[in-house]
Formats: sequence, structure tokens, C-alpha cells
Amino acid sequence: MPRPHSTVPSSPAFPGPGHDSTGPVRPGPGAGAHATLTPVAVELRDGFWAVRRQVNARTSVPQGPDLLESAGNLHNLRLAAGAAEGEFQGAYPFVDSDVYKWLEAAAWQLGQGEDEALAADVDRIVALVAAAQQDDGYLNTWFQLRKGGERYKELRWSHELYCAGHLIQAAVAHHRTTGRAELLDVARKFADHVDSVFGPPDSGKPIDGIDGHPEIETALVELYRETGERRYLELAGYFVDRFGHGLLGGEAYCQDRVPLREATDVEGHAVRQLYLLAAATDLATEIGDEELRAAAERLWTAMTAAKTHLTGGLGAHHDEEDFGDPYELPNERAYCETCAAIASIQWSWRLALLTGSARYSDLIERTLFNGFLAGVSLDGERWLYVNPLQVRDGHTDPGGDQSARRTRWFRCACCPPNVMRLMASLEHYLASADADGLQIHQYATGRYSGDLGGTPVVVGAETDYPWQGTIALTVEESPADRPWTLSLRIPQWCRDFRVRVGKTVYDRTDAPVTDGWLRLERTWAPGDQVVLDLGMEPRLTAADPRVDAVRGCVAIERGPLVYCLEQVDHPGGGLDDMVIDTTGPLAVKHRPDLLGGVTTVIAAGHRRRLPETGWWPYRSAEDAEEPPPGAPIELTAVPYYAWANRRDGSMRVWLPTS
Amino acid sequence: MPRPHSTVPSSPAFPGPGHDSTGPVRPGPGAGAHATLTPVAVELRDGFWAVRRQVNARTSVPQGPDLLESAGNLHNLRLAAGAAEGEFQGAYPFVDSDVYKWLEAAAWQLGQGEDEALAADVDRIVALVAAAQQDDGYLNTWFQLRKGGERYKELRWSHELYCAGHLIQAAVAHHRTTGRAELLDVARKFADHVDSVFGPPDSGKPIDGIDGHPEIETALVELYRETGERRYLELAGYFVDRFGHGLLGGEAYCQDRVPLREATDVEGHAVRQLYLLAAATDLATEIGDEELRAAAERLWTAMTAAKTHLTGGLGAHHDEEDFGDPYELPNERAYCETCAAIASIQWSWRLALLTGSARYSDLIERTLFNGFLAGVSLDGERWLYVNPLQVRDGHTDPGGDQSARRTRWFRCACCPPNVMRLMASLEHYLASADADGLQIHQYATGRYSGDLGGTPVVVGAETDYPWQGTIALTVEESPADRPWTLSLRIPQWCRDFRVRVGKTVYDRTDAPVTDGWLRLERTWAPGDQVVLDLGMEPRLTAADPRVDAVRGCVAIERGPLVYCLEQVDHPGGGLDDMVIDTTGPLAVKHRPDLLGGVTTVIAAGHRRRLPETGWWPYRSAEDAEEPPPGAPIELTAVPYYAWANRRDGSMRVWLPTS
Repeated sequence: MPRPHSTVPSSPAFPGPGHDSTGPVRPGPGAGAHATLTPVAVELRDGFWAVRRQVNARTSVPQGPDLLESAGNLHNLRLAAGAAEGEFQGAYPFVDSDVYKWLEAAAWQLGQGEDEALAADVDRIVALVAAAQQDDGYLNTWFQLRKGGERYKELRWSHELYCAGHLIQAAVAHHRTTGRAELLDVARKFADHVDSVFGPPDSGKPIDGIDGHPEIETALVELYRETGERRYLELAGYFVDRFGHGLLGGEAYCQDRVPLREATDVEGHAVRQLYLLAAATDLATEIGDEELRAAAERLWTAMTAAKTHLTGGLGAHHDEEDFGDPYELPNERAYCETCAAIASIQWSWRLALLTGSARYSDLIERTLFNGFLAGVSLDGERWLYVNPLQVRDGHTDPGGDQSARRTRWFRCACCPPNVMRLMASLEHYLASADADGLQIHQYATGRYSGDLGGTPVVVGAETDYPWQGTIALTVEESPADRPWTLSLRIPQWCRDFRVRVGKTVYDRTDAPVTDGWLRLERTWAPGDQVVLDLGMEPRLTAADPRVDAVRGCVAIERGPLVYCLEQVDHPGGGLDDMVIDTTGPLAVKHRPDLLGGVTTVIAAGHRRRLPETGWWPYRSAEDAEEPPPGAPIELTAVPYYAWANRRDGSMRVWLPTS
Repeated sequence: MPRPHSTVPSSPAFPGPGHDSTGPVRPGPGAGAHATLTPVAVELRDGFWAVRRQVNARTSVPQGPDLLESAGNLHNLRLAAGAAEGEFQGAYPFVDSDVYKWLEAAAWQLGQGEDEALAADVDRIVALVAAAQQDDGYLNTWFQLRKGGERYKELRWSHELYCAGHLIQAAVAHHRTTGRAELLDVARKFADHVDSVFGPPDSGKPIDGIDGHPEIETALVELYRETGERRYLELAGYFVDRFGHGLLGGEAYCQDRVPLREATDVEGHAVRQLYLLAAATDLATEIGDEELRAAAERLWTAMTAAKTHLTGGLGAHHDEEDFGDPYELPNERAYCETCAAIASIQWSWRLALLTGSARYSDLIERTLFNGFLAGVSLDGERWLYVNPLQVRDGHTDPGGDQSARRTRWFRCACCPPNVMRLMASLEHYLASADADGLQIHQYATGRYSGDLGGTPVVVGAETDYPWQGTIALTVEESPADRPWTLSLRIPQWCRDFRVRVGKTVYDRTDAPVTDGWLRLERTWAPGDQVVLDLGMEPRLTAADPRVDAVRGCVAIERGPLVYCLEQVDHPGGGLDDMVIDTTGPLAVKHRPDLLGGVTTVIAAGHRRRLPETGWWPYRSAEDAEEPPPGAPIELTAVPYYAWANRRDGSMRVWLPTS
């Protein structure tokens, strides 16, 4: 099989990191005291993620301002600034946050090199945000324009602090990548206002309260890291600890049923739960709160063990967008909001840095390649809000935000700019350093750089991952006489691997792997090579028997990718009568022509002969013996992330075995 | 096994039908021209349904006024009548309909005999309704009190005509059972007002529109039947045909995506769809509209074949309360609103009468004994709005209306008074007559009466159905020399039966069964006996393989009853690791002490040894071989209708087989 090779056309937008952009969770002054690892930015040069990021940089992000204009978000800011006339547009009190998330994406983007048009858009919109801000720092166009300026009266649903959080995070990114302070000034003014209003009952501040949607908490930690102002960290800590005490009525939806420190399982609205847990992990990282750390680790394990879809998707219910019961993981009604995948990555990365454990990056990889990436079309112009694992034959699509068809923009447009900001900052989620060396969490062609007490260590990587499992690493810079450890994550999905270090070859039986990390300690010299070969045999995956939704089914996976069948590849019928023959071979076929270039997996199967059910589809189990199989047919599985990029039709990840 | 015997204590509330109460779909003047069968009321004397109806009569219905008082419904009527002060209470524009449904239930109840206390409550509340009505006939307290009297501006959600419909139906019942006209006058005045406002574009009437929730349509047909006023029938026909043309925005939710005449599948909000189809069937019955009849029959088959839960429950989605895709029939998230079960029974009965086909009563039986009856607790005091087929171990109950725990009353209290009105009018859904004789659709101890051209035919029945399959029928009255046909429905679930007519015995191989009806044509004489023995062996049921949710599972059924496991009967753990051994015997054990007296089914099973999953519940299918079974345990299945009457815990209808 020829080795496929993804290429990124050279582009002025891709010269590599421009400013000091060590990322959204770069510990700030005095921070990270309790972190095990420090994130380092990777210079992505080529390959799978570089292509996806280029689509983001060239299509998704540049289209943002026009979309925010047509949806009315910018109009609302102009109204609030007194620079336009008309009515508030949009259906939700959090529409401002779409603008902030886009600004954050654009700011990360600017960190990757000059882009005059984008910089001009950012300046224009930053000025608009500044103009819309009220004198005391408050800013929310919904409440300024529609509620007569009333504030903080409906915290359960107002999203006022949620919007503030996204504004703050955008400002931190803008300052971190460009050194510019215009947006940071707006954010600090708002944060100072919030700090003057919210506090514990004995603080003398007017409101003891929290926002129904966590988000400001992580942002305040970031603001602390960026400014060194400890008040922001303390305010974040106050907010995190006030959830679960009934201030919002005690609902799980708002994370208000039980304090995190006592919680035994994830619950309620998935994105809210995950943003709150990210903040708790930030606090554990910054102040060494062991109880919060224990809660975060405990809840992460509970979530992954019983409430995570194979794709890394989270959230089982359409109504309330919430987690279901343990092992309640439906396929056609999987909610798996794109924002929840993003929040999961952000939280897991914080845990990876805090603990140093590889499992968190295992989940990040799975989520990036599947549940997250499915949220944006291959052309970067259309989006999925929900990410089901099945679309049935005869599906009646509801349209709107919860459609299983890709949509240009949403009424509740939280997901698209969220994808943009993660994609634009992706280089910060891939690698870390510590006093002993460099850890490569995710494999991509590029340049992984850290430093050991001021001496740079640089490793170059070449790979066609995830299509091929070979990752060729070359030490480019290293201290001359000092040994250090190059740590390579052996993915949790990987059953077999080999690694060659110079003339030494290890495999799974003798490689120095601990806790998911292959740790290669050497006195490295520039030019030293390591070649890691991850076994990429396609595989059939089954679920814990308590996952009722997939009883009697398997899924096809290869490397980090979850696969699915799409109707378009299987003419002559739908998919709901399709059965996979698990004794048949799984073949791999790279298709440069298909879906931007994907490796397909070919399996054997057949269409089931369906019973004549008449008007009632239930019958005696004795009469329900399996009829003889239909003629064998070839099943073509494509990566899940690429689904719904051709014509509408049914789709399944989990395939019945008989 | 001793024969269990349910008894109804003698009660003044149960003297049998009082007035001429031939029921909610009794054809009125000039009506029924196109019906095949005419409904006849059955005098229920004893047994299963008599007990349930007594609970309804003695507990549920009498408690109605107090519940409507505490929920504020009666207060709102007093406010509208100018007889009280305060704020509108309740969260929905349809709260008046709770009062009307209760009045309808009470009216049917009064038809069964004197009840002074109930009659006084009815008189009081009827007077209140009359006082709240506006001079021109309009009545809706939400719009009168909260919207400054604004009318018909939000038809998609206003429920103004929906409430009018329930008022009309209550008035028809009140008039039909008591002969009293107070409420009928209110209803006619409202109907006349509606008729003056709504009509086609060329009618000169102000509004060409429909209500987002069908209901007034069936009620107007009933008003026509009760009054002979053809305008009402025409107005119903106008409304039914205006759905599906985008008047409400074109959503499936409101039945506005496609006209019924063109529809190929049920869709949208389940109760709305079913009420609309009931109205279409009424129109086909009254005016012989063959296109509407064909649509109703087509959609009924589509619904039962792919969108009906084993319990007869309908509605797959919590959000939008709507039908899902074909074969999308989840267990833990089955919505199966109690109101949808009621609407299904009402629609199917109309089809049974229109067509004469037994299948509609097959579904009625299944729904009555399972999806409907589960909606009310055994004591008649607590309710389920949604009726899931599974509650998982570790279930986090959301509380509120969608709780899987029985609730005293709901914020949206549509279901409880709906159960009351169906239970109080149940005798009208059990039997019918035509020119050739009497059809027994449902089996209960009582007196089935019809007439053949003025000569009465009366058959008495004795049975312990559904615990026993023996139904002993005795002809009590019959014309002396005229042969007629006694038709007995052979249930769709029944695999084996015998019937003895005098000295002749038939079984399935030689009995005169056509289209689900055992037709016994004789010249009958008083004292003639027929004994029908329906085979009541418990059975295991499997589903069409496209019902993904129950792949690899069976359900236990016996007679018309669906069974379930409840955690309370299986100490030492939950249910999610439970497996049924399908090769083991199914034993039957009647338990007079349990749940008001139920026959349990005992099956063999074991608890699965669960894999150590660590933090990820998916693994190679090769490693997923079934571990050896745990120790055998006895599974105790109880009728589904009786679940959730003991302590909270998990429940399952569908049981994994391995």
C-alpha cells in the first residue's frame, strides 16, 4: 500500500508561532506550583492537523465576522455602544459570547503569524466591544438592551458571568499572542466589576452568587496567570466552591445539586459540568487543593468508565443537554455536543498537566480525532451541534440546531466559534515538558521544543499519523552532556508497537513503558533518531455489557479513529438491515480521492433478511430465529469525523454482529 | 394453582349505567352512516377493570377538586369570573383543560349512578366555568387574565381551541349522562364563537387558523353528535384539513408539516398526532371521507409496525414529546406519555368502529393493560407522566413531570385527569353491535348488551381475565327465532385457544375465525353457554431486529400483560447485570398478597460477571467473550402496569439473553 502523504501548501499564515504563545493553560506568574508538567507549544508543519488548522485559518475564522454580522451579534454591540439603531437580535442572553469566542480564535490565529485582514477585523471588533462596555465595567448586550439594564437577577439563566468569562479568555489570548492590551483592559475592568459585586456573605459584597453556566472560573484563573493579580484566582475559587449549595435552586443541570468536593459522578448539563471541572483542576494546579484534585480525578474516571461514547462524545440527552445514567449511551440520540467535546479536551489537558498521567491525553486523542472533529465539515463552513453515532434509515431530521445534517450557523451558535478557538490553539495541547525532559502527548509532523533549565531541547517529528503508525523523531537540539527523558505516549488503543532508538529495538514486551509513557532516557545529541511504530491493524471493538444501546454490536476502529458506515457507500438500501461478519477479514484501503483523503476499512457483511412483521414488530422469541444470511456484501467504513460531508443518508458506528 | 378472584365490594357508586350513556363516540343524529360497528356500553360487574374503576371512582376522581384547588386552576376561573382577587396561578395557557378533563371524568362517573357529593362538586365547578366565560363565548383564563384579553395571536402555543375542545367534550359527557344542559350551553356558546371567528379564507371569517394542539376537532364532532348541529361537524372538517399547510410555521411538532391526506408516517408530538388522527377517523365515520379513512388506516399501521413500544406506549423522545424514527424505541428514554396511550386508545376505538377490524382492539387491549394503566398508581393517588421501559441501576431521577417516580400531581397536569376520564368511561370501549349481532372486544366480568332492530340481546360474562384465560359467557336475552352472531375477539397475542359452544368444541385449527374475530352464528336462547379458553402460557417475546434498543433481549409476557423485573424483588444487587436464561422454564405464581394481587412469572437467570473495565468501557471484541455465568437465580417478573408502587429502584422490561 502506498504511503499517503498529506501536505499543507506553504502559506504566509503558517510560518510557525509568532509571539510567546505557550497557550491557554500556560501557568502565569507564581502559578503551576502544583503541576507535574508544563505545556509547550508545538510548531505544526504538516500532516493531518496542519491541514485541519489551515481550513480553520483560511475558511472558518475569516468567515466569522460576516456570520456574526448576519446573526446580529455585532449589531447588538453597536446598539449597546449607541452606534446603531434598531432591535436586539438573537434569542439568547449569551449571544455576546459568540463574538468573544471568535475573538479568542482570531487571537490564537494571530499568534501564528501576520495576517493583516484578520488583525484589522480583530481591531474593529475589539473597539466595538470596548465601546459597548458600560462605565463600571459591566457588559452584556441582552441585559443592557432588553432588560432595561437590570443585572444579575436571573443568574440561573442569564449567562452574564459566562459571557464575561469568554471575554476574559479572549482578552488573555489577545494579550498573550499580540502583546496588545486593548481587550485585556476591557476584560480587567469587567473582572474588577464582577469582583466588586460577587463574594461570600461575610465579604460585604452585594451578591453571594454564581452563574448557572460555569466558564468565568477558568477564565479568571487565566487572567490571574496573565496579570499576576491574585484577586482573580481567589474569585475563581469562591465561585467554584459556591456551586452545589442551592444558590441556583439546587438543580443538577446548573451543577448546583451537590458540591464538587462531594460529588461521586458527573451529572447535569455536560458542558457546564466540564467547564466547572476544568476550573477545579486549575485551582488544584495553582493552589494545591488536594480535595479538588481528588474530586477531579474521581469524576474523570466515573465519566470515562460509564458516560463517554466511543467517540469521546459526552452528553446522553437532548433535553437538558445532560449526562444520562451510568452506561446510558444511546446512539441515535447521543447528544455529544461539540462544545462538550471541546470542554472535555480542555479539562483533560489540565488533568494531564496536573498529574502527568497519560490516560488524560488518551482521551484527548480520541476526542480530537472523533467527537470534536466531527463537529466541523471538511470545508470548514458547516457545523454539527450534536454528534450522534447513528442516523437511521427513514430519519426525519428536525432541522435547526439539533439537526444531524451540517448547518451553516446555529440559532444557538456556541459550537462553531468554540471549534475555531480550539483548532487555532491546538498546538498547545500536544506536548509538555518537565525538569527531566519532553513529553509528546499527540503525534503530528512538526517541531516539539522544551527547555531544561534554560537549555533548549528540540525534537522534530515526521509522520502520516493517523493514517500510518510510524512516527520518526529526530533530536534537533539538546544539551551536550546532560541526560534527559524523551517520553512518548503509547496510546491506550494500541495493542502492539515497536520503537527503534539508534540500533536498539523495543517492543511491547520489553519497552520501558510506565503509566502509558514510553520513557527514553539518554544523553541525546542532535541527529539522534527514534522511530516509533504503532500497530495500526484495524480492530473490532465491543462495549461493556451494561451499555445496552450496543448489545450484540461491534465498532470498527483503527489507530485513534472510530469508523462508521454511511449509506452513500452502500447502494441498494439503507443500513439498518446491515450485519457485520466478525469472522471476516478487515482490509485497509487508503483513498486519496475520498473525503479529503482517508484510509477506509473494508469489512465483510450482509443484509439481514427481515421478517414480515405485519402491523406488530414483536413476536415469540421462539419464532425469532435468525433467518439465513443474505448475499455477502462489502462494508466500507470511513472515519467518523468525516461523516455527513456527502449526501444525506443513514450512518452507523455500531454494527450488529448477527 | 388456586383461581384468583378479584372482587368489587358492592357500592352505591356501582349500580351499573344510570342514564343513556352509550359513550364518547356514540354516533349522534345522522351520524355513523359509514361506521361498521356501533359501540355499546358494558355493565362492568367485577374483576380486574371493575377494581381499577372503583379506585378511580372512590379515590382519583373525588380528589380532583382539591388538587385543582391547590394547583390554582379553580382560582383562575374565579379570578376570570371576578369572584376572587390575586394572581393567575400555573405555568401554562392550558391549565383550564385540567378542569374540563376532570369534569368529563366526573360526568361519566355520574352516569354510573347517584353520587351526591360528586354531583355537588360538578355543579359548583360548572357554575364557576359558566361565570368565567366572556359574554361572546370566549373562555381561557390565561389569556383573559395574563394577556389583557388578547386572543388567537399565538395559536401555535396558545391552546385556546385545545381548551375549548376539552370543555366541549366535558359538556357532551355531562349532557349525555345527566341530561343537564348547563355546561352544554357554555360549550355551545364557545363553539359558536369559534365558528364565527375561524374559517377558510373565502368564508369572510376573521381568522384562517388552527390550534397547535389538536383536540377541538374530535370535540366538535361529538358536539355535532349530541346536538345534531351540522355546523360543528363542518368546522371540525375545516380544522382537520388546515393542518399541514404551514399556518403554524410548518413544524411536524404541531402536525403542520404535511397534510394528513398525504402523510406516510406518524410524526411530531405524539398526543397531537393522535388526537388529530382520531378527528380524521371521526370525519371518515360521519361523512364517508375515504381519503381520510385511508390515511388513518395507513398511519395506524405505520405507527404500530415501527413506532410503538411493547407496552403500547407511544413517543420516543423527551424533548418535543414526539415520535422518533422508525424502530427508534428506546427503553430508559421511552417517553410513552400517559396521555399518548389514552389518545391511542381513543383513536384505535374509532378505527375499530369504522372498519370492524379486530386489530385495533388488539392494540387497545395491549395499551389498556400496560402503557395506559402504568400511568396511575395502584392506590389511585400518584401518577406517571412518562412511562419508561427501563430504569437503570444508579438512575439519577430528575424529579418533576418527567420523573420515573410516581408523583402526586404535575406542573403540566394533563395526564391525571385524562386517566380519570378514560377510566370513568371505560365501559364504552369494550363492545359493539351491528345488524348481525354483538362483538366483544375486551373481556371483563359484566353484562354486554346490544339490540337487533329493537330486540335486546344480552350476554353475561364471568372471567378472571387477565389472570386466567377462561371467559364464561351466558346468553341472557335473545330474540326467539332470529339467528345472530356473537363475535369474540381472539387476541393477537394468543397462540392457542379452545372454545366450547354447548357441546361443540373448537380450537385454533377449526374455529370459525376471520380477521381476528371468532364468529359464532346461532339462533341463541337464554341460558346458552359459550366458554372461551385463551391459552395463558407465559411467553418470551423478541423484537424486529431493527429495534436496536432491545437487540439480544427478550421480554416476558403473559396474556395481554407485559412483565418487568423490579429491583425490589431481586435483593443483592441491581438489574443491569441480570441475564435471563431463555432455555429455562417459565413458571406462573399468583400472589394475592402482592401489588393488589398479581400473577407473577418466575424465570431462570443469573447475574453476569462483569469485566474489570478500568477507566474505559470499550475493548477488543476478541477479548469480550462472555465470561462463565454466575450462580443461577430466580427472576420474579411482575406486570408492568404495577411497577413503581413499592420502593424506588431499577426496572427492566427487556432482559438480555446473554
